Amino acid sequence: MAKAKNKPKNKLWGGRFDGAPNALLEAINASIDFDKRLYAVDIAASMAHVRMLADQNIISQADADAISTGLTTIRQEIEDGKFIFKHEYEDIHLNIEARLTELIGEGAGRLHTARSRNDQVATDLRLWLREACDAIDATICDVQKALITQAEQHTETLMPGMTHLQTAQPISFGYHLLAYVEMLGRDRGRFADCRTRLNECPLGAAALAGTAFPIDRKATAKALGFSHPMAHGMDAVASRDFVVEYLAAAAMCATHLSRLAEEIVVWASHPFGFITLSDGFSTGSSIMPQKRNPDAAELVRAKPGRIIGALVGMLTVLKGLPMAYSKDMQEDKEPVFAATDQLLLGLMAMAGMMGDLIANKEAMAAAASHGYATATDLADWLVRVEGVPFREAHSITGKVVALAEGQNKALTDLTITELQSVHANFKAEALAVLDPKKSLAAKTSLGGTAPKQVTAAIAHAKKRFLS
Amino acid sequence: MAKAKNKPKNKLWGGRFDGAPNALLEAINASIDFDKRLYAVDIAASMAHVRMLADQNIISQADADAISTGLTTIRQEIEDGKFIFKHEYEDIHLNIEARLTELIGEGAGRLHTARSRNDQVATDLRLWLREACDAIDATICDVQKALITQAEQHTETLMPGMTHLQTAQPISFGYHLLAYVEMLGRDRGRFADCRTRLNECPLGAAALAGTAFPIDRKATAKALGFSHPMAHGMDAVASRDFVVEYLAAAAMCATHLSRLAEEIVVWASHPFGFITLSDGFSTGSSIMPQKRNPDAAELVRAKPGRIIGALVGMLTVLKGLPMAYSKDMQEDKEPVFAATDQLLLGLMAMAGMMGDLIANKEAMAAAASHGYATATDLADWLVRVEGVPFREAHSITGKVVALAEGQNKALTDLTITELQSVHANFKAEALAVLDPKKSLAAKTSLGGTAPKQVTAAIAHAKKRFLS
Amino acid sequence: MAKAKNKPKNKLWGGRFDGAPNALLEAINASIDFDKRLYAVDIAASMAHVRMLADQNIISQADADAISTGLTTIRQEIEDGKFIFKHEYEDIHLNIEARLTELIGEGAGRLHTARSRNDQVATDLRLWLREACDAIDATICDVQKALITQAEQHTETLMPGMTHLQTAQPISFGYHLLAYVEMLGRDRGRFADCRTRLNECPLGAAALAGTAFPIDRKATAKALGFSHPMAHGMDAVASRDFVVEYLAAAAMCATHLSRLAEEIVVWASHPFGFITLSDGFSTGSSIMPQKRNPDAAELVRAKPGRIIGALVGMLTVLKGLPMAYSKDMQEDKEPVFAATDQLLLGLMAMAGMMGDLIANKEAMAAAASHGYATATDLADWLVRVEGVPFREAHSITGKVVALAEGQNKALTDLTITELQSVHANFKAEALAVLDPKKSLAAKTSLGGTAPKQVTAAIAHAKKRFLS
Amino acid sequence: MAKAKNKPKNKLWGGRFDGAPNALLEAINASIDFDKRLYAVDIAASMAHVRMLADQNIISQADADAISTGLTTIRQEIEDGKFIFKHEYEDIHLNIEARLTELIGEGAGRLHTARSRNDQVATDLRLWLREACDAIDATICDVQKALITQAEQHTETLMPGMTHLQTAQPISFGYHLLAYVEMLGRDRGRFADCRTRLNECPLGAAALAGTAFPIDRKATAKALGFSHPMAHGMDAVASRDFVVEYLAAAAMCATHLSRLAEEIVVWASHPFGFITLSDGFSTGSSIMPQKRNPDAAELVRAKPGRIIGALVGMLTVLKGLPMAYSKDMQEDKEPVFAATDQLLLGLMAMAGMMGDLIANKEAMAAAASHGYATATDLADWLVRVEGVPFREAHSITGKVVALAEGQNKALTDLTITELQSVHANFKAEALAVLDPKKSLAAKTSLGGTAPKQVTAAIAHAKKRFLS
Repeated sequence: MAKAKNKPKNKLWGGRFDGAPNALLEAINASIDFDKRLYAVDIAASMAHVRMLADQNIISQADADAISTGLTTIRQEIEDGKFIFKHEYEDIHLNIEARLTELIGEGAGRLHTARSRNDQVATDLRLWLREACDAIDATICDVQKALITQAEQHTETLMPGMTHLQTAQPISFGYHLLAYVEMLGRDRGRFADCRTRLNECPLGAAALAGTAFPIDRKATAKALGFSHPMAHGMDAVASRDFVVEYLAAAAMCATHLSRLAEEIVVWASHPFGFITLSDGFSTGSSIMPQKRNPDAAELVRAKPGRIIGALVGMLTVLKGLPMAYSKDMQEDKEPVFAATDQLLLGLMAMAGMMGDLIANKEAMAAAASHGYATATDLADWLVRVEGVPFREAHSITGKVVALAEGQNKALTDLTITELQSVHANFKAEALAVLDPKKSLAAKTSLGGTAPKQVTAAIAHAKKRFLS
Repeated sequence: MAKAKNKPKNKLWGGRFDGAPNALLEAINASIDFDKRLYAVDIAASMAHVRMLADQNIISQADADAISTGLTTIRQEIEDGKFIFKHEYEDIHLNIEARLTELIGEGAGRLHTARSRNDQVATDLRLWLREACDAIDATICDVQKALITQAEQHTETLMPGMTHLQTAQPISFGYHLLAYVEMLGRDRGRFADCRTRLNECPLGAAALAGTAFPIDRKATAKALGFSHPMAHGMDAVASRDFVVEYLAAAAMCATHLSRLAEEIVVWASHPFGFITLSDGFSTGSSIMPQKRNPDAAELVRAKPGRIIGALVGMLTVLKGLPMAYSKDMQEDKEPVFAATDQLLLGLMAMAGMMGDLIANKEAMAAAASHGYATATDLADWLVRVEGVPFREAHSITGKVVALAEGQNKALTDLTITELQSVHANFKAEALAVLDPKKSLAAKTSLGGTAPKQVTAAIAHAKKRFLS
Repeated sequence: MAKAKNKPKNKLWGGRFDGAPNALLEAINASIDFDKRLYAVDIAASMAHVRMLADQNIISQADADAISTGLTTIRQEIEDGKFIFKHEYEDIHLNIEARLTELIGEGAGRLHTARSRNDQVATDLRLWLREACDAIDATICDVQKALITQAEQHTETLMPGMTHLQTAQPISFGYHLLAYVEMLGRDRGRFADCRTRLNECPLGAAALAGTAFPIDRKATAKALGFSHPMAHGMDAVASRDFVVEYLAAAAMCATHLSRLAEEIVVWASHPFGFITLSDGFSTGSSIMPQKRNPDAAELVRAKPGRIIGALVGMLTVLKGLPMAYSKDMQEDKEPVFAATDQLLLGLMAMAGMMGDLIANKEAMAAAASHGYATATDLADWLVRVEGVPFREAHSITGKVVALAEGQNKALTDLTITELQSVHANFKAEALAVLDPKKSLAAKTSLGGTAPKQVTAAIAHAKKRFLS
Repeated sequence: MAKAKNKPKNKLWGGRFDGAPNALLEAINASIDFDKRLYAVDIAASMAHVRMLADQNIISQADADAISTGLTTIRQEIEDGKFIFKHEYEDIHLNIEARLTELIGEGAGRLHTARSRNDQVATDLRLWLREACDAIDATICDVQKALITQAEQHTETLMPGMTHLQTAQPISFGYHLLAYVEMLGRDRGRFADCRTRLNECPLGAAALAGTAFPIDRKATAKALGFSHPMAHGMDAVASRDFVVEYLAAAAMCATHLSRLAEEIVVWASHPFGFITLSDGFSTGSSIMPQKRNPDAAELVRAKPGRIIGALVGMLTVLKGLPMAYSKDMQEDKEPVFAATDQLLLGLMAMAGMMGDLIANKEAMAAAASHGYATATDLADWLVRVEGVPFREAHSITGKVVALAEGQNKALTDLTITELQSVHANFKAEALAVLDPKKSLAAKTSLGGTAPKQVTAAIAHAKKRFLS
């Protein structure tokens, strides 16, 4: 092992050790390269803590003022890119405290009174995720807005409703898009629940047992916008279920996006030709000049990989982990940051693509007329008008389809005589239900694809999601 | 390929096909071996549907009555173990409908009016999961109760609070156990949110587009205890995010249990000896007669494997899946059933173990006195009484620990002279804070380990979780 | 807690316990419901063990004969469905031993000499997986055969080679299918490596430390077809990396199948219409009589869910698990059995589908002519014949495509004059390379899509994979 | 596109985007921030390609020389930190080509002749992973060496062999450590198999169909050290199973390390006290001066999280992905880089910890004497000497243990009279087998814990793994 013989000791906790930390330990242990993203929340939490310490007469107001001023300076230094992050100080917390000592002297040592890195980092991560939930909520809303805007233009645009990627029944493009508005709405609900549940303050739990200092946990919780202090100190420092819940919500949202992205890729393929993506969301090929590749959609389709990976990773870390804080938990941050970045990027790309894409109405309508898509309407007519039991009507219609298929005809090309050759009760009016437009208009049940229902659904969605 | 030459056609949808389904198709396609667990919710949903059809005059009251009576008979047959499930009818829905036809004749064919298997199976699964959420909630509550009951007996039972599995500070066994009550409380919160979000009714979405029949979706939703009909038909049949949310809640809960299970295994090991499991929760060895193995705890520790696997599996299935219903979604049931069974078993085993286990107070107390566990208290004394900045106090205490360690002494064995050799400000009263009992009693901050705080926390937990 | 008050003790390890195992412990602990699938390998291993014990004079030949005869009887009872599996005997090993005692009396107690369930179950699982590897290898081979048989008929069947699901360059259907033969060939390689690596014998490791009996581990290893005894006793009983390796190979193979299944679903959709699945692999709809759903392909597409889930589950169980055997490891069997069943089913369904499907040559050829698929050939012509640097040629061809697109023409509809309006060096012969058939024939590089290369590749694949 | 003009900048995700679609596409599409790690292999592959082009007279030797010289310059620029990577050039390939054009002019445009980014990136990634396999192999070997070195010092160091974390039988510390040498040996085997299987050359597959240029694929394959060209062009560009296989091997190896890390954490805890980690691998606490935390071990225990996450992520990306190249595949690199970094770090940390740790022989020996660890030896004595069937011997010994436990005695404290009170056949010599040292020495079966077997195993391991 190459030892790092002449390295300076870690000044903040190294009092007891003879040897310098092994270079490898430092390499595996230091988190400053990624946890510096916590700087703003870390400083905010420290400021709330130090103000409370002074209000409780645990430190002097003068010390508190000096610390606050120092922290404000540090925040500015970081935002100006002038702060020098050092591996020897391991993480964002110790980097800030070390700099504070440089700036204000030994008074900096009073900041960590009645606090531990354990409750500090739990507080920081909750604050960071609270902001992330808000950012994601706003960005999902952008996607919903883009979907609704497209849907409004296409309440009567026929397209084939597909199951098993086979033509099933005529629907409208607007109706199809609105389904995703609902899914994304529930995703927002999950992030909202996650935000509510994580918005409790760990500060004051100290290492794991609470503290003998007369702190006021309600005051710090309130100052930081938490709903209340966490009820139990060891739970406060040792739990990361809020991270798992966040990542699960992100994984589901990314998976919803992947479904829409898959549809965009399929719709943009030549045999479908249902949509055209804008130049802004198409890329070329290094060898095939004619290509117009839906790269952004493909990347959105792939993003669940990284985010499900982050979720699985976090659950793996927590599985079988004894209490209270163990260093294993340091593995919570990189997955959280990566998943957040990937999800936000995917959402923004989807909002962009959806805003720009052009629906090719003729191609969609042609496909909607294919494949005996209104056969169900014929079966329903037999039930509704002639009182035939549904299963029998279903069987009769199956024979009608076979007849048409055998003659290579569309259903609308069949004569009433041909229909009656299958079942005597068919009447001329039955032919009317075979028109896709009429089929569409007839689906007037609540939440159905009839234009008037879709129009109502748009209004309902706007009210719930955009206002 | 082994062909299934002379097999009968599937009578319910086979009208159009010349060939019989391939035996392999039947093997991969049939879900009756597992989805029969849905029988009760399927029958309940069918009854609500048929009653609504009659109330809307879509079918006659006589037909509805006959169908209801037939379904009641079928439910009884299934519960009596007399119902013969057949692979040729694929799934629970078609098995029931086929039997209904045997029982009441062609009128059975009216049951599927204005309905598809797509909305039917989505309804069934939501109803099943709603019940599962309730069962899990009650069983988590049992675990909480067992934990609180143990905690009540141990508010003053000293044990070493550990971080990194190293002795950190004295806590009480009751305090330790209560942390899990909090974690499990949030798990219940996640299941409750999941239950609320999934409690919407897909019925009436039909295949994907809604229907032309004048159905009353609010009536069926109400009859089945759903809060309202789902707003969008395609979303109703094509979404399974409620399954993912359920499995994510289950995975997190199982992971919480695995942490406690790991602690039980470690505590029950000889070098720790903190607890003794009852005979009822210990097993022997086939070759080592003296063993007393914590098998149940180990299995609980392992259970996240299966449940995280189910979660990942469901996300994998949904990734990139185009709308609306695709057969891929049939893969939702087995993971749900398996995860539910495993979680309930794990919860019940944990409630049992926790109810029975004996805390070995002496072993815990001895360990709590080890490892300079009250060094922090000494540092805090310097801060609190002498006004030394925390970081300096921390450094001084480090030297005190090094002094004691060098002489192979406990901190409580040091004399005041020895303390003063490290720092002149030490006073005799400082020695008092080194007693673990006093350290425990001093952690009076909200949510801390002081017995009076733990007693308050127990009352608070009972109010939130057991009433 | 429901206690199991008057239950009989477990006779095989219960000697020391006062209380009967709690009913819950039995419920969570018993594995007989699933591990009975190991009966044949368990009996085979016991027979090899007992024969060795006799050969080493550890037990008498008479005892060994009686045990062997008894085990033969038990195997027959199980295969005849007459064996009664009991939960009180936990697992397959104790069920068999208990029955052996009934059959031959106390001599049965000599079977477990110099053995533990720890080495016994590890041996059984390796034997079972060795057979599973063989079964999977043979079934993958069936899929390769079906693919090669289809490919042989379609070495000249034009289809659009797609990247990003956009038409890229003309290829043949045979060429496309052969790609999967390669992927599946590597899957077979992974299973073969896995089989080789797991084919070591744990027997003789006993509980974890080896044994004082003068056993002959090489003899049992040889008798059971293992390559040699495992080198280390604790590794033998505590490792399950062979399970993870097997599941990883299965997950990858299932994922390969899912890619082909996705293509089948897309190709079978109406807008593509590239293929028609046989009736034997299509299903209907309960409400839409005209549907012809590729259910089997969709299920194959979904199967990675369960198998990736099993892989993740097993890794989760092993993460952070101390040595040697812990009960957590019992969670290895259900995922292994489920993954094996699902993969074999998926492979068989794919072999069946692939054997039956009809390629619609006209639809494929029409699509291959679309989308300026031969633009690259034009760029390459400029490079090859006119010496234009590739990047410049690429840029020129882009302008040609833009010209054609602007006039709504295919490339083959452009005149030489039009070509020359973009770049003076174009010559009449350049037009020839725009014909898809010629483009196909020109890709003669090793492994390319030219029919003669595909024919060679088929021969090469047959030699490697089918002989 | 709803522009984000007036939206506040997302603080979490940075202000890179104006909200214009192009910017978003660039953001999601560009891979240069991570794929620049491929620079060296990309340049090597380009050099081999361009040399072959010249040798085949596809480009001139002069052009080839200019390109090679340019690429050499670029490599140096990158290694000197002088190369400016640009997002507008998306990825490492285009960044290099753009710079090459600056350096040598339009001749740079000839480099991409008969090549596509599709085969280029597949080639690069295989080259990179080949090197990674070698680096990992060497680093695992370092861990094995550290383990063997420790084991050599402890072939007779008694410790309790544990199952279920309960004392089972006496083993030696050396024996315990050697088990991990075997596990890691199989990990090396998996990386070796992975390396062999991935060491095929995709170059020449071009976009997906091969090329019409008269390239020599065998020449480039040979120049780059590949065993041969890949057999099929579309497979070459569209497959990523080699990435999955690599990540699966990494996940398993990391999981093995996590098991050893868990043991280190448990052994280093005070109640065990089996080992002491060096100062170089211990860290302190910010609040508890006495702590000596095994942070490195904890981080190694947690690392499977990230690596299993990467594996799951890659499988998720590939699930259901149609051929040939889709942009989804760009998601292969970040997980590969992250998993490689984390695994190498974990391995190095483990080698370091293992090299430094001190075994506390007395604590281990004391624990080995506890818990009736030699009860099995007594049972075996009854079988071996008195011919009692094993099951009966097991039951008798159980009663002996109960007798000793009832009197709070160790087995070695029992008198022969007491033994005979349980079973008449006990003789004085039976007492001898109860000594842990003798128990250890007696386990002479192949692979057992007897010192002479362990010494032999060390020699065997050195031969297989260190030479």
